[in-house]
Amino acid sequence: MSWASALFQPRAVAVVGSCSPGKIGHVLVTQLLDGGFDVVATINPKADGIRGIPAARCFQELPVGSREIDLAVIASPAATVADMLQDAGQAGVKAAVIITAGFSESDSRHEEERLVSIARQHDLRIVGPNCAGIVNTKHNLFATLETRPPAGDVAFISQSGALGGAVLSWAQEQGLGFSKFASYGNAADLSEIDFLEVLRDDDETKVVALYIETVSDGRRFMDAASRLAAVKPLIVIKSGRSESGGRATQSHTGSMAGSDAVYEAALQQCGAIRVAGIEEMFDVCRGFVHLPRFRGRRIAIVTNSGGPGVLAADAADAVGLEITPPGAALRGRLSNRLPDFCSLSNPYDLTVQATEDDYRDTLIETLKEYDAAIAINVNTPYLDAAPLARGVVAASQTTGMPIAASFVAGQPAQAALPILKEGGVPNYVTAERCVHVLSALSVHGNRLAAIEGRRSSREASERKKKPLPFPWNGRPTEPMVMDWMDELGLPTIKRVVATSAEKAVQAAQQFGGPVVMKMISPLVLHKTDVGGVVLNLGTSKAIEEAFTKLARLVPEGTFNGVLISPMVEQAVEAIVGLSTDVTFGPVIAVGLGGIYTEVFSDLALRVAPVSVEEARQMIETLRGIDLLKGARGSVLRDIASLSQLVSDISWLALRFDGIEELDLNPVFLLERGCMAADARLIPSDDVPMQRSR
Amino acid sequence: MSWASALFQPRAVAVVGSCSPGKIGHVLVTQLLDGGFDVVATINPKADGIRGIPAARCFQELPVGSREIDLAVIASPAATVADMLQDAGQAGVKAAVIITAGFSESDSRHEEERLVSIARQHDLRIVGPNCAGIVNTKHNLFATLETRPPAGDVAFISQSGALGGAVLSWAQEQGLGFSKFASYGNAADLSEIDFLEVLRDDDETKVVALYIETVSDGRRFMDAASRLAAVKPLIVIKSGRSESGGRATQSHTGSMAGSDAVYEAALQQCGAIRVAGIEEMFDVCRGFVHLPRFRGRRIAIVTNSGGPGVLAADAADAVGLEITPPGAALRGRLSNRLPDFCSLSNPYDLTVQATEDDYRDTLIETLKEYDAAIAINVNTPYLDAAPLARGVVAASQTTGMPIAASFVAGQPAQAALPILKEGGVPNYVTAERCVHVLSALSVHGNRLAAIEGRRSSREASERKKKPLPFPWNGRPTEPMVMDWMDELGLPTIKRVVATSAEKAVQAAQQFGGPVVMKMISPLVLHKTDVGGVVLNLGTSKAIEEAFTKLARLVPEGTFNGVLISPMVEQAVEAIVGLSTDVTFGPVIAVGLGGIYTEVFSDLALRVAPVSVEEARQMIETLRGIDLLKGARGSVLRDIASLSQLVSDISWLALRFDGIEELDLNPVFLLERGCMAADARLIPSDDVPMQRSR
Repeated sequence: MSWASALFQPRAVAVVGSCSPGKIGHVLVTQLLDGGFDVVATINPKADGIRGIPAARCFQELPVGSREIDLAVIASPAATVADMLQDAGQAGVKAAVIITAGFSESDSRHEEERLVSIARQHDLRIVGPNCAGIVNTKHNLFATLETRPPAGDVAFISQSGALGGAVLSWAQEQGLGFSKFASYGNAADLSEIDFLEVLRDDDETKVVALYIETVSDGRRFMDAASRLAAVKPLIVIKSGRSESGGRATQSHTGSMAGSDAVYEAALQQCGAIRVAGIEEMFDVCRGFVHLPRFRGRRIAIVTNSGGPGVLAADAADAVGLEITPPGAALRGRLSNRLPDFCSLSNPYDLTVQATEDDYRDTLIETLKEYDAAIAINVNTPYLDAAPLARGVVAASQTTGMPIAASFVAGQPAQAALPILKEGGVPNYVTAERCVHVLSALSVHGNRLAAIEGRRSSREASERKKKPLPFPWNGRPTEPMVMDWMDELGLPTIKRVVATSAEKAVQAAQQFGGPVVMKMISPLVLHKTDVGGVVLNLGTSKAIEEAFTKLARLVPEGTFNGVLISPMVEQAVEAIVGLSTDVTFGPVIAVGLGGIYTEVFSDLALRVAPVSVEEARQMIETLRGIDLLKGARGSVLRDIASLSQLVSDISWLALRFDGIEELDLNPVFLLERGCMAADARLIPSDDVPMQRSR
Repeated sequence: MSWASALFQPRAVAVVGSCSPGKIGHVLVTQLLDGGFDVVATINPKADGIRGIPAARCFQELPVGSREIDLAVIASPAATVADMLQDAGQAGVKAAVIITAGFSESDSRHEEERLVSIARQHDLRIVGPNCAGIVNTKHNLFATLETRPPAGDVAFISQSGALGGAVLSWAQEQGLGFSKFASYGNAADLSEIDFLEVLRDDDETKVVALYIETVSDGRRFMDAASRLAAVKPLIVIKSGRSESGGRATQSHTGSMAGSDAVYEAALQQCGAIRVAGIEEMFDVCRGFVHLPRFRGRRIAIVTNSGGPGVLAADAADAVGLEITPPGAALRGRLSNRLPDFCSLSNPYDLTVQATEDDYRDTLIETLKEYDAAIAINVNTPYLDAAPLARGVVAASQTTGMPIAASFVAGQPAQAALPILKEGGVPNYVTAERCVHVLSALSVHGNRLAAIEGRRSSREASERKKKPLPFPWNGRPTEPMVMDWMDELGLPTIKRVVATSAEKAVQAAQQFGGPVVMKMISPLVLHKTDVGGVVLNLGTSKAIEEAFTKLARLVPEGTFNGVLISPMVEQAVEAIVGLSTDVTFGPVIAVGLGGIYTEVFSDLALRVAPVSVEEARQMIETLRGIDLLKGARGSVLRDIASLSQLVSDISWLALRFDGIEELDLNPVFLLERGCMAADARLIPSDDVPMQRSR
């Protein structure tokens, strides 16, 4: 029997803990029995049972008939949990839900480790400790203190027990049913990753919702989330956007990319749908449960009231959905069917005189041109909403296409709600909410299409290779990194190292124009900050003076000469950076030159590696993309070459051991090609700041 | 008797229209009587009455006792409305609510004008036509077909009848009460402006909510809205964000600033609070009704559950509220009062063991350091929410400070809701909603403080002056505009007009460095588009060649020579523009140089004029502001001089007749001072594109 079967379809359940009234054990047993699961026993020091269930002081003492216990739900005091777990393991229990708190969350990490080692010994898996329990509505199993939710198609996995409980309490009112629920608390053993793996193949679950504050292993999480999201929608609330999250980076792009931005990128790369909070989660889950998948962006709004139609159009515009007007053919078909006073543009305003037929016909006709529709009915006390709802349901069933409804408000709309529900049309209290749901569906459809087949054969084979050793001892200087990039076939600027003013002048002559001089010193990480870069040197005199000045910036013996490069005019400056996230490991970023990145925070980020095509998509998301595409009469830039560079850099952290951060700043982006004009590499063992987990 | 009294406190009401069952007149009479207003008569061709009310075919025939009719509610067919209005006017009726549709909204503009002229004749004011009626809960007056809302402190004025009806229907469930409601439909006579004026002095209204799609007279709207907002909160839904709204502008800044951006600026300048939709309107109205005003940004989050606390902190961070940690003194006070397991940072997590005292004491103590607080309780079936709610209410009453609650979810939280309601603490289904409400309150408090005393004496005196005549015949060329700016004392770049290559060379010599050459031609509005600007000319030969090239760009006779100016290096480029909005008139915009404005849409906009201080605030809102403040080692720019220029330009459209648009692009912003390097002025009578209303 798998742990998942033992946990979600146990033959029998034992509740461990006092069953006296007012005690948690009492609540748990009552909840299980009231929920319809009646193969329950209880274990506690007094062998107290309630409502006639078997009771004993330990598993061994249970009567033979109640020995088919696959799941133990433990709510006894923290000090007793290890012994009870040991006892359960010996009795052949395969899964334990530990409600009891007081472990790693209150610094009792050692006690929690002991639980895990006991579990390993007996091949028993743990949910928790410090969790709110689990639910399987299809098995009538409610092993939780929280409200029993209605049954449905959504599995909800929550790192926070209280938030999980709030979701279950709210489900009835929100009209959302759950297949399974698990609160995994401290995740001593089973974590969100295990649940994602199990739910992928769970036929009773159509949609998975997840609340996380952190994940322990970013790469494994991404693997599990990607595999799940490929077969069913994964909706994620990730809290802690505003926290710094322990990213201590020295590189430019690294420090720009907060921890939350990495989570955002990772979730997107997995094909998960991130939502901001519980309300949006309910809305989007209902959309995914009831509506067919689609990829387009064109939405028809059919309404009986102008104002709410315009508000919906505003919301659609804000999220990038297209409220396009009808083509001539559609206009013709509609004008044949609808009364004259109807507005034959989008939003389609059928006015307060709209009938069942008007709604049905308009939706059916528009959905021949649009990808999805929103049906709004602002009902009044003197209007019967029921037939209008029937019109919407008929259109939904005839077309099989996505229609979200907003039949409002309060009492006057009540008659419509059961009809819509019965007809599988999700209803929302505002049309703006319909917009957000359709947007999530459309984004998801497009993203999945983009992800399919993205994982190139290159990744599969590269991942299997053993990484090459770190190429240097300690931190390399700029010319060392640039030479290494040359060896790897990565584009760099022409340059010469000069260790005297005389050699600097000679070097400059070979470039035949003004040059840039940069100091080389292992002491200095940020050369511009100390005046270690001099631009536009045109004469021998200027070069000599600059050399002398740079040589004096650092103590003798730490000055390793200068790097001379030609001045490059007319280039757009980009920035490409590799950094290491505590949770997700190597992360690749690309942005436009310093000011765009710094002042406008215009940076695209992905968990590395990325393919050339993914790199191009990253670049396309930059707000400054028009600067590369010839805006304001500027020349078109070689986006393909930059995409190639971004992808190549993103692989370096996987090909070589020990690269913590790599910053190419600037990268000159030309009409043809691009080249790194500066490179800074920080080894993994050279991170002076303390990293927190 | 004022029109407002006749409308909202009539002595008696006549319903005009058929009272047969199923007819609108029948519904209106029923609604009035059921709502508790019993001095009702009805006028219809059959003199049909119901429920014993007086009935007649016209006002003259009504029995003497029912002659005190101040308000007529007209629902008879469109063709009869004018006659009925005439009849009502003759009978001394002072206000008419015309529910009937079929006037200007269906191209019957003439018939609507007739109604207005009849009304003027009899000193009678009209609400509508094509409206959903009016409500005064304090007078038990429900002259509407829509749901009767609960009584309360909010007045709601809606351009859309259906949306107004939806709000009334939803009010009970949302827990919001209304003092007055008016749907003004086509606004043939009374418009949103009239209602804003009346509601300012309405003691029964604490908060005003407004739904608009357009306003007819932007300046009068701003005056009325400003005066209202100075004494009570004005919450506005403005729909149609996504519509182009008929702004056909030729200037750069003008075309960047969509119609919605002007509405956004105008509402902000009035001190109104713009919300996105109905849900947010309900939330924010409840906040303003129940919570005291405040201006700070520091929020304490007190919770019994980590997850929802973090989600609230995320939301707060996103809107710029500060979730700062406690100072040492507060930590000390809290650690004396709270159990050890509580988290003494913000969010303050009291854990599931939190008591009434914990909530009360923590809120009281934190509110000594913070400006407002959010109290979150995620309740579970085994926890009694009532005492926790009492703790929150006690803290609210003790401190008198703003506390918003989120006691959730569903059934387990029910016990708390009446306690919070009774105690005047608004409760929201998520803590994120609390955040948005507190943010609206805080923004409002700050904005009002900024607006107070902003209207300088200069504005008052300037406004009274007659504008000066337009200084030119037709469209002036660049040098004409620049010379005019010099006369006005506005900073411009040094320049010389040259009408031959030889003179151009001479002109360049006096600047002693490379120059810029720009063609002068009345044919060309956008010089750069046709290659009419040549930069960085360093030699006589280059100047001569450039002159020849520019002279060939336009037909002979339309080339008026060139303008020569020195190249200015090291300046930050800004853009200052004046344009004319169809609704609000002159609008002033400021942004950073072309790419920032174009690619990043980084532009600040206000309805003109603005004071120097307001101009500075505009500049401060630019995302690129750091570029002016010495970011990346750049030099500090003279923001004061740019503020002065923006303010001065904003006044020009009021001081001179006939200025449609004025674009200064670029304005060079230096370490000391700034100067316009190019100016383009378009007269009002020179607007080739059709403007729509």
